[in-house]
Amino acid sequence: MTVYQAIRARRSIRKYVPGAPLPQEDLHTILEAAMMAPSARNGRPWEFVVVRSPAVKEQIRQAHPYCAYITDASAAIVVCGRPSPEEQKEGERGEFWPQDCAAAIENLMLQALELGYGTVWCGLYPVKDRCDAIREIIGVDSVPMAIVLVGRPDEAPDARGYFDPTRVKEID
Amino acid sequence: MTVYQAIRARRSIRKYVPGAPLPQEDLHTILEAAMMAPSARNGRPWEFVVVRSPAVKEQIRQAHPYCAYITDASAAIVVCGRPSPEEQKEGERGEFWPQDCAAAIENLMLQALELGYGTVWCGLYPVKDRCDAIREIIGVDSVPMAIVLVGRPDEAPDARGYFDPTRVKEID
Repeated sequence: MTVYQAIRARRSIRKYVPGAPLPQEDLHTILEAAMMAPSARNGRPWEFVVVRSPAVKEQIRQAHPYCAYITDASAAIVVCGRPSPEEQKEGERGEFWPQDCAAAIENLMLQALELGYGTVWCGLYPVKDRCDAIREIIGVDSVPMAIVLVGRPDEAPDARGYFDPTRVKEID
Repeated sequence: MTVYQAIRARRSIRKYVPGAPLPQEDLHTILEAAMMAPSARNGRPWEFVVVRSPAVKEQIRQAHPYCAYITDASAAIVVCGRPSPEEQKEGERGEFWPQDCAAAIENLMLQALELGYGTVWCGLYPVKDRCDAIREIIGVDSVPMAIVLVGRPDEAPDARGYFDPTRVKEID
C-alpha cells in the first residue's frame, strides 16, 4: 500500500470484529512505526501501554465517555507523554510533547492500516479528569495523552477528509 | 513506496538543493494528505500558508532561531491552528487542535517523502514569541503552530528513530 493510498484510505473505525487477534509481530511493527516519528530535540517523549485485558478495557470504557467500542477492539494502546527533564524545566515554553505524541499516533494508525487493522483515536489530554482516570487504571507516572483502539474493522465508513482550498494561502 | 518503508525512511532534512521546483500538483497532493488527517470532532482546525517568496523566507529565517535552512527549501509551509468556536469556548478542556495539526504534519511529511521531497518540522507553538513573530510576517489570524520546510534533499542523514522496548508496557 502506498503512502498516498493509506492516508486517503484511513477512517476512524468504531466497530470491530470481536476476538480478532493482534499478533505480537504486528504489534511490534505498529509500535516501531510510532517510535519512528520525529520529536522536538529528538526527545522521544512517549510511552505505550497496550491493554488487552477485558477487565481493564472495561474499566477504561467506564472512565471514558467516547470509548464504548473498546470492548471489541483487539487492543487499546494508551499513548502517554513523558516530557524530558529539560522540557519540564522550561514549562510552557517547551511543551512540544503532545505534538510529538500526535505524530507518533498518526504513524501508528497508518502502519496499522497497512497491516489490515482499523483504528480510532480517543482523546484524553488536555482533559484533566480523563487523563487522571486513565492514569490510575493503567498505573503509569506519565501523562495518558490518547487511547488508540486497534482491531479488525467491522464497518467501512465514508471518507471525511478532503482538500479544502479555502485553508490554503500562498505567498509567492 | 509502502507505509512501512516511508515511515522508516523519513529523516529531518536540513540541507536542500537550492532552486529546486515544487510544482503546484505536488503541493496539492501534499496538502491534501495533510487535510486527510483525523481531527477531534472532525473539527479540521488547520490552515496552511505556503511561503515561496525569498523575501518572506528571509524574514522567517531572522525570526526563528532554528530555521536557517529555509533559504534553500522550495517552500516553507506554515501550519496554523484554527480552533473551532466550540473548542475556543471550552478553553483548556477542549484544546485538541495542536494534536490535530501535528497529525496533519506527519501526513504531510510522509506524502512529501513519497513524492521525493525532504522535510523538517520547525516548532513554533506553544512558544509565544515565535508564534507572534511568524503570525505578523505571514499575516494570519490563526495560530502559527509549526513551519515545515519542503525541498529536494541535499543530504542523507542516518535514522534516529528506533523501537525501544522500555517504552512499552503490556496489560494482558
